[in-house]
Amino acid sequence: MVFMRFRPRLIFSSLPRYISKPRTPPAATLAAAAAARRRHHTTAVATSMAATSEDALRRALAERQAAVDAQAEVVRALKAGGGASKADVDAAVEALKALKVEAGAAARRLQQAVGAGAGAAAREELRQTVVNTLERKLFYIPSFKIYRGVAGLYDYGPPGCRVKANVLSFWRQLLYIKDYGMCGLQHFVLEENMLEVDCPCVTPEIVLKASGHVEKFTDLMVKDEKTGTCYRADHLLKDFCKEKLEKDLTLPQEKADEFKRVLAILDDLSAEQLGAKIKEYGIVAPDTKNPLSDPYPFNLMFQTSIGPTGLSVGYMRPETAQGIFVNFKDLYYHNGQKLPFAAAQIGQAFRNEISPRQGLLRVREFTLAEIEHFVDPEDKSHPKFVDVADLEFLMFPRELQLSGESAKLMKLGDAVSKGTVNNETLGYFIGRVYLFLARLGIDKGRLRFRQHLPNEMAHYAADCWDAEIECSYGWIECVGIADRSAYDLRAHSEKSGVPLVAHEKFSKPREVEKLVIVPSKKDLGLAFKGSQKMVLEALEAMSEKEALEMKAALETKGETSFKVCTLGEDVVITKKMVSISMEKKLEHQRVFTPSVIEPSFGIGRIIYCLFEHSFYTRPSKSEEEQLNVFRFPPLVAPIKCTVFPLVKNQEFDDAAKVIAKALTTAGISHIIDTTAISIGRRYARTDEIGVPFAVTVDSTTNVTIRERDSKEQIRVDITEVASVVKQLTEGQSTWADVSAKYPAHVGPQGDQE
Amino acid sequence: MVFMRFRPRLIFSSLPRYISKPRTPPAATLAAAAAARRRHHTTAVATSMAATSEDALRRALAERQAAVDAQAEVVRALKAGGGASKADVDAAVEALKALKVEAGAAARRLQQAVGAGAGAAAREELRQTVVNTLERKLFYIPSFKIYRGVAGLYDYGPPGCRVKANVLSFWRQLLYIKDYGMCGLQHFVLEENMLEVDCPCVTPEIVLKASGHVEKFTDLMVKDEKTGTCYRADHLLKDFCKEKLEKDLTLPQEKADEFKRVLAILDDLSAEQLGAKIKEYGIVAPDTKNPLSDPYPFNLMFQTSIGPTGLSVGYMRPETAQGIFVNFKDLYYHNGQKLPFAAAQIGQAFRNEISPRQGLLRVREFTLAEIEHFVDPEDKSHPKFVDVADLEFLMFPRELQLSGESAKLMKLGDAVSKGTVNNETLGYFIGRVYLFLARLGIDKGRLRFRQHLPNEMAHYAADCWDAEIECSYGWIECVGIADRSAYDLRAHSEKSGVPLVAHEKFSKPREVEKLVIVPSKKDLGLAFKGSQKMVLEALEAMSEKEALEMKAALETKGETSFKVCTLGEDVVITKKMVSISMEKKLEHQRVFTPSVIEPSFGIGRIIYCLFEHSFYTRPSKSEEEQLNVFRFPPLVAPIKCTVFPLVKNQEFDDAAKVIAKALTTAGISHIIDTTAISIGRRYARTDEIGVPFAVTVDSTTNVTIRERDSKEQIRVDITEVASVVKQLTEGQSTWADVSAKYPAHVGPQGDQE
Repeated sequence: MVFMRFRPRLIFSSLPRYISKPRTPPAATLAAAAAARRRHHTTAVATSMAATSEDALRRALAERQAAVDAQAEVVRALKAGGGASKADVDAAVEALKALKVEAGAAARRLQQAVGAGAGAAAREELRQTVVNTLERKLFYIPSFKIYRGVAGLYDYGPPGCRVKANVLSFWRQLLYIKDYGMCGLQHFVLEENMLEVDCPCVTPEIVLKASGHVEKFTDLMVKDEKTGTCYRADHLLKDFCKEKLEKDLTLPQEKADEFKRVLAILDDLSAEQLGAKIKEYGIVAPDTKNPLSDPYPFNLMFQTSIGPTGLSVGYMRPETAQGIFVNFKDLYYHNGQKLPFAAAQIGQAFRNEISPRQGLLRVREFTLAEIEHFVDPEDKSHPKFVDVADLEFLMFPRELQLSGESAKLMKLGDAVSKGTVNNETLGYFIGRVYLFLARLGIDKGRLRFRQHLPNEMAHYAADCWDAEIECSYGWIECVGIADRSAYDLRAHSEKSGVPLVAHEKFSKPREVEKLVIVPSKKDLGLAFKGSQKMVLEALEAMSEKEALEMKAALETKGETSFKVCTLGEDVVITKKMVSISMEKKLEHQRVFTPSVIEPSFGIGRIIYCLFEHSFYTRPSKSEEEQLNVFRFPPLVAPIKCTVFPLVKNQEFDDAAKVIAKALTTAGISHIIDTTAISIGRRYARTDEIGVPFAVTVDSTTNVTIRERDSKEQIRVDITEVASVVKQLTEGQSTWADVSAKYPAHVGPQGDQE
Repeated sequence: MVFMRFRPRLIFSSLPRYISKPRTPPAATLAAAAAARRRHHTTAVATSMAATSEDALRRALAERQAAVDAQAEVVRALKAGGGASKADVDAAVEALKALKVEAGAAARRLQQAVGAGAGAAAREELRQTVVNTLERKLFYIPSFKIYRGVAGLYDYGPPGCRVKANVLSFWRQLLYIKDYGMCGLQHFVLEENMLEVDCPCVTPEIVLKASGHVEKFTDLMVKDEKTGTCYRADHLLKDFCKEKLEKDLTLPQEKADEFKRVLAILDDLSAEQLGAKIKEYGIVAPDTKNPLSDPYPFNLMFQTSIGPTGLSVGYMRPETAQGIFVNFKDLYYHNGQKLPFAAAQIGQAFRNEISPRQGLLRVREFTLAEIEHFVDPEDKSHPKFVDVADLEFLMFPRELQLSGESAKLMKLGDAVSKGTVNNETLGYFIGRVYLFLARLGIDKGRLRFRQHLPNEMAHYAADCWDAEIECSYGWIECVGIADRSAYDLRAHSEKSGVPLVAHEKFSKPREVEKLVIVPSKKDLGLAFKGSQKMVLEALEAMSEKEALEMKAALETKGETSFKVCTLGEDVVITKKMVSISMEKKLEHQRVFTPSVIEPSFGIGRIIYCLFEHSFYTRPSKSEEEQLNVFRFPPLVAPIKCTVFPLVKNQEFDDAAKVIAKALTTAGISHIIDTTAISIGRRYARTDEIGVPFAVTVDSTTNVTIRERDSKEQIRVDITEVASVVKQLTEGQSTWADVSAKYPAHVGPQGDQE
């Protein structure tokens, strides 16, 4: 959830529409909202899902263990008594052995289920192989390696840069594209209403105060009291509980249940609660075993100073979205004051993680691609929703999560029509994200759209879904798609004093009834003294329904009880404290704060998952070693085609140059490999960076084209090579198409030596 | 010079080749090197160029003024004497008036020459018009505008983003392209040896200590002693001198000469010298007139802290190059251990300017595109230099600058063969940069390649040229092309302990004579005590020639005088202090630190200059107002084509959609403008964002295509529109070509109302 913003819960789930002044949540309300920021839900969900079978296995193990203990007692008694026959003792010992075997099997089954067994080891091994390949081929390089690097910072090396550029260019295409289904990937046009902006990373404090990041963008940290080494408090508690559950197979059921409960509520624990648990369990610094400090919040933004005085605090932006929000007014005018429209930004974002783990997934600087789609809150339909309504993929709505079930294949159109997905626009972007990830080569079986649970989501948010991709680290949030309602624009309106609103002009003026709430500050002050402000704010923030109910109550009873969430209690409101009336007014236009629907893509995470999903190994021809292959689709592949002269020879070299020139003209990125190693070795080398097609020059008139994954080859005339490769890489032809058209080659070329 | 790194002067212009340990300049040597960083040369050069004519005008004014004074004395004497006739007095007064007129004219001429007259006002006005248009159309937006912005930070709005994307994509094409002359702009391939990397902005301190930025990347600052407001010390002195020269026309010649000299040496002044001048001239804080502090260095890097402890200092990178240098070893292996090869990086860089001026030209965050081309220092030839040798453009070698002449048209091939440009590789990149800028639409008459003067350039640099573009702010460095020798790789080798070297394997071992210098620490210590280290380092850093001379001197005279630059004095070296010998050795390979040739592009500056060069105004049809036009080439234009239904009508709208769809398929970015304003207004609107072609639908069978700058129109069948526009925008056809082929349209459509 690297790019999910903190989501302060508001007290009011929806804001009243006809109230004269904008009702952005007052700062005090925000401050009181609990569980400001959730970044760690995966554990909780995964745990609750696995719970059922694991509990049964744990119970089974406990039973077997009890049987072993009982039988051991029997053996001991038989031996001690001295009266038992040797046959009886032997039989009892045999029975004990059998029970121990059973208990051992139960322990292994449990071990497997809690992920500490062979499965986890295999995942770990796969990851090591992938990461080693990625680093060796310079897809990634740990940054500043010659200086021993910096945790959480990575470079993209040459093939990584190309993959990233391909992914970003496809992102722009897919999201800007008109009539997606009807035109090839080369043929796109920037959609009129998608306005790209490019804002600086250095951001003044006031912007991030308004957005809430200065106050809330924190993780809880503990320090080794002797060495000062810092740890994320929740990580330590999580590691402790997980280790207990995984390693201590004889854990009593009630203890296991407690640790699971802690894992499930980890994100909801306050600093005090986390601290208490750490003390209770006796958790110490992992490296030194020293005692730990109490947990305290650490802001994750990189702080700096703008200008030379040192007085102007700035931060490196933690997301790109704020740059769009502060420009809303200009963008709205640029768009001819029409809604809906979307703004997009691709750029670097920064998070000063306390102790980055999970390698390439949790980093301190990363590329985000964010879209802010502004809509009229009264109309969230989308004209192009029909284009994606028939898509079917794994969805994981909150009901399934809460009932412990797994994600299910659902049709997007059904999910929206049944209300599982809140609205068409949100659904449209979910569909677009699905298409984007699937076409990049993400395994559809390991991609799910998970809805946020009520406690993960800010009250102001209408609905949130994460595209999660399963990799060796578990299910990883790679894209967040949220209907954030009017929250962000309201926050900046309030802080800057510049109204960030849209207008709907009426063709003729409308008579509207307007709710007017006028609190009497004097009477509120007399009654509530220090709490006056919170009562006042709560009164002003009432929905129309609440206000009308209060009006009725005051008129009939003269007073009424009123819940003030920020106080955490009910107060008594009397008639003279507030006047509530409905007034008729002629209005020429409607002025409103647009809602924003935000798909936010963590590009690095998507690329990393893509690497894992694309990777496989296959034995070399001699079966002596495993060869690495990335099965990138041509769209993603850093290089589309390699040209190999079969043997070192002037004629073949010249033919290779002719082919290379034709590929250049066709705009196909390629390399010529004339190194004097065997063709099999050269194929292996090109497979390892995921080049989809290889042209081998073994004649001056016609040559072979080899497909990476099937290793099949066809013979094609030299003059046709470039156009065949172009068709294959641009998707006009499949390998099956060209295999049917051109003769297969089953020659002496040794593949995969 | 925003992206020029500081260039510490080394004591030795070239480093000895056959010395066993790497000879990176010791820190002390670096520290002593004066004039660490030069960012402000333009003033000095401009001043020296204008000097001749300005001096003459100033002399002429002084003479006229003297004549006026003398004649005034005559008049006074005549009147005081009482004996003069009225006619004589009148004649003398007339003569005085005439002289005053002459003096006035001389003053105006001088005013013009010093840039304070109408020319400056016109430049300022043009800039205002351009900047207003750019901001109104959202090419640029001052960042965080609703919070009153931050000096030196700008957003690219939607059309600005597209221009930037077009420029960067062309940069990749032009620099990666093979056979540039032979293929269209769409058809390019990444050149094998150009390795792109993408490194983080957050950089640990050690990297920037090695590069020298922590110590030297500073500007001198003064503070208002009462308010604490900060100013760049050199700016205040420069402003003072310029104002004196521009406004005080009666300045005595000697004073004028002094101010000019100060402007010329501004970059060379130490903190003490700057402070002394500020005191001498009585310069105070411009806003408050308060006294100023002494100047002190302010580091221009944005500082931050990596990780939670606060102990690990980091900076936002001031340039992208360091990310490439630290990866040299991996990139060299990735390239099959072959030289030459180049690495490239496009990314954000950050400079915390003391008080940004010059609007979009001096900003605190900007996009750099840098190439580091690694070559064998013994072979700087370039196989593709022939492709650019015939290019002819304005070059401004140091001889012309020093003799007060202007830049001259030179053929690049001649400049290299005559040794004006140091080597072919440097020349090749100068040619590529020229092609790049010219094709973007930079006016060739306002583009020059200026060689660094000896005092601007680091001693280690072999040669440096800046592509300077003239705009309303004067001549602005937009691209720096430097042969930085082995400096950067050596600095990181020394600091990291990881040798960043290349190898040349010999086909058979060679016998080489190797210079071996063995200082005797004991004897040096006895003789030089505290200075021992500096003498030792200077001895070890001797070139082969110097060492052999010393050897000869010691053998004949037993001692010799030796200049130790870090001590600033000569010392006497005796025979026992050092043993120098040439030893024969068999070598199997040559190990060397590659030289690096670095073209570094300030993308934002290039774009801003492009905006100024592309901008013009022309009267509307009614001549009541001036209309703004950007004459972007199609390559740069944010949108290639607009489609206008002439009047609101279903048939025309449908035809427009058919055309739009064909444009989509052809990959041409376009917009449809169906607003109900006059076609002339709509043309004006599209001209103002530089759209090169407009299609007006005034029939359902054939339509007009209008060219932006000539305003000419042709009639084209609807089915052909997309292919005609594609040819025009991709450069296969010129407007002249299609005008010859299709009938001209001189219809009733009102253009430019």
